[in-house]
Amino acid sequence: MLDSRTQTGNAMAKTVIGIMGPGETATAADCDRARELGRLIALKGWVLLTGGRPYGVMNAALEGAKHVGGLTVGILPSGDFEDASNAVDIPVLTGMGEARNVVNVLSSRVVIVCGMGAGTASEAALAIKTGRSVIFVGVEPTSTAFFSTLGKPIYDAQNPEDAIRLVESIVGEI
Amino acid sequence: MLDSRTQTGNAMAKTVIGIMGPGETATAADCDRARELGRLIALKGWVLLTGGRPYGVMNAALEGAKHVGGLTVGILPSGDFEDASNAVDIPVLTGMGEARNVVNVLSSRVVIVCGMGAGTASEAALAIKTGRSVIFVGVEPTSTAFFSTLGKPIYDAQNPEDAIRLVESIVGEI
Amino acid sequence: MLDSRTQTGNAMAKTVIGIMGPGETATAADCDRARELGRLIALKGWVLLTGGRPYGVMNAALEGAKHVGGLTVGILPSGDFEDASNAVDIPVLTGMGEARNVVNVLSSRVVIVCGMGAGTASEAALAIKTGRSVIFVGVEPTSTAFFSTLGKPIYDAQNPEDAIRLVESIVGEI
Amino acid sequence: MLDSRTQTGNAMAKTVIGIMGPGETATAADCDRARELGRLIALKGWVLLTGGRPYGVMNAALEGAKHVGGLTVGILPSGDFEDASNAVDIPVLTGMGEARNVVNVLSSRVVIVCGMGAGTASEAALAIKTGRSVIFVGVEPTSTAFFSTLGKPIYDAQNPEDAIRLVESIVGEI
Repeated sequence: MLDSRTQTGNAMAKTVIGIMGPGETATAADCDRARELGRLIALKGWVLLTGGRPYGVMNAALEGAKHVGGLTVGILPSGDFEDASNAVDIPVLTGMGEARNVVNVLSSRVVIVCGMGAGTASEAALAIKTGRSVIFVGVEPTSTAFFSTLGKPIYDAQNPEDAIRLVESIVGEI
Repeated sequence: MLDSRTQTGNAMAKTVIGIMGPGETATAADCDRARELGRLIALKGWVLLTGGRPYGVMNAALEGAKHVGGLTVGILPSGDFEDASNAVDIPVLTGMGEARNVVNVLSSRVVIVCGMGAGTASEAALAIKTGRSVIFVGVEPTSTAFFSTLGKPIYDAQNPEDAIRLVESIVGEI
Repeated sequence: MLDSRTQTGNAMAKTVIGIMGPGETATAADCDRARELGRLIALKGWVLLTGGRPYGVMNAALEGAKHVGGLTVGILPSGDFEDASNAVDIPVLTGMGEARNVVNVLSSRVVIVCGMGAGTASEAALAIKTGRSVIFVGVEPTSTAFFSTLGKPIYDAQNPEDAIRLVESIVGEI
Repeated sequence: MLDSRTQTGNAMAKTVIGIMGPGETATAADCDRARELGRLIALKGWVLLTGGRPYGVMNAALEGAKHVGGLTVGILPSGDFEDASNAVDIPVLTGMGEARNVVNVLSSRVVIVCGMGAGTASEAALAIKTGRSVIFVGVEPTSTAFFSTLGKPIYDAQNPEDAIRLVESIVGEI
């Protein structure tokens, strides 16, 4: 596993990569991509961050990372440890409902958007607003066309491997 | 001025209508529509809620409402009274940055989206996620096409008058 | 009714005074003081802000203010309009649980603490932390002794009338 | 290092223990206790959580844990990675100012209060309010006397070793 320390700012902090996507409404293809993204993030030695709930993209990504021994963080909307996916190592309980979406994106060096829904759209928009780099994977052209109008460049990846190469180049420049 | 009480739930609460839109990056047309929307909301006897900062759509809407004697609420990202627009009657200071976007939409019976930007996009998405009715006014087809894919019906108004008619029909049903 | 505009900063904003105290666990004496405080705040032309729930000090203060035609704001922990006291004019829904306690104190020019409990203690501490003036009314010496150790002066009022005189002198200096 | 998994609920989650205390105003004795607490928490195999800033109790506890190879989480009030202590492994950026105090306590299985100040008082009160177990170490009798009136039992430890024994017995029962 590669070293997970970044070279600037807090020299000790691990590199945390976020995966955002739909929960209960995720498609099978969304979950397959999320699982592979989680696996690849863990293999790079990065920490995986998701919304932490045991559904859809969040859960698949967490499972993918744990399957290869990665470290996982879940930022939960509730204040109850029981609401976290079993694949979360460190549950961060906010008790703040949807306001936790801001924490998800601020805490991620890079935000990967995998699939789409109303909550995911809020996270992609907040990531752009707060200056985080955003990579879309497997997202419909209607969605990427919209997010590309919000004043910041976005990245559109063909597949998980392509997304991880983009993360590497972005993290290398931070 | 009409009565501002709704008929169900908290029988005493005033009807609060939110206008969301870009701040510093708003266009002149966005601001013209926002000012007219604020004016019409105040004339209906509804309370106007915005993000409260002295810029763009927020500020124009607040000024439109105050010009005809309306009551205005601003939900500020900062914790400082000085950061509110002069047209805010009741500044609600959150000190929570972008997390206050959730408060904006939850506190609005109906959310009117006037113009577009990253922060506004997060508010539109959060409104859809939390079940608030959303009316778009003067928003590009690329944007409304995207938001119409998020699983809930949205309203696309031609102009401020049209938007207010939609608000009336929605509020009448709450 | 006196003018509710302050003289500095946002020249238009109304003066918002917060009353914090226990909900379901409030004593009858707490509620009596809260009702009188709400009444006096409304008579001064100030806006009353509380946690907005239909219990204890929050509810009594709101009722006291409404009884004499005051304007009331409730900052709710939930995201549901139905959870507000009937005496709230403007429900601000945060959906953030206890994190809304920060909004309560930041949005109040002066925080009046009426009674004590765990939630109220967090609000008194947050008010001191964020530089808001805090007036205690009818609070046990064990509590005021503690809060007076936190590095900022606090005010200990004998009764509601005394508290309102303190608010007036503080608001006059803002 | 002992196993950091708890036996119930999310069977995989690591046991996260929070240390709360003053930042810039911490005393040397506060910091000495915090460093020892952080060290002992790491040696137990638990994850240490603090407010994450490079000052006072937060920083000393984090350094104590890192010195023996522990894993550390910092919940930051800002949205900037640069604001985290160098001893934070996983910075959780909230951008929510003091509202992050709620996240600190909700995310901790047990909250250890080490030293006192206005921010720390809000965390102790929020911990009691949200049902987290709270252990005070090296806190003045005026403070523990106050917190013991808030309706829930609190623990008063003589020293760091005593506090860790209490954490062990509490975690064993969760």
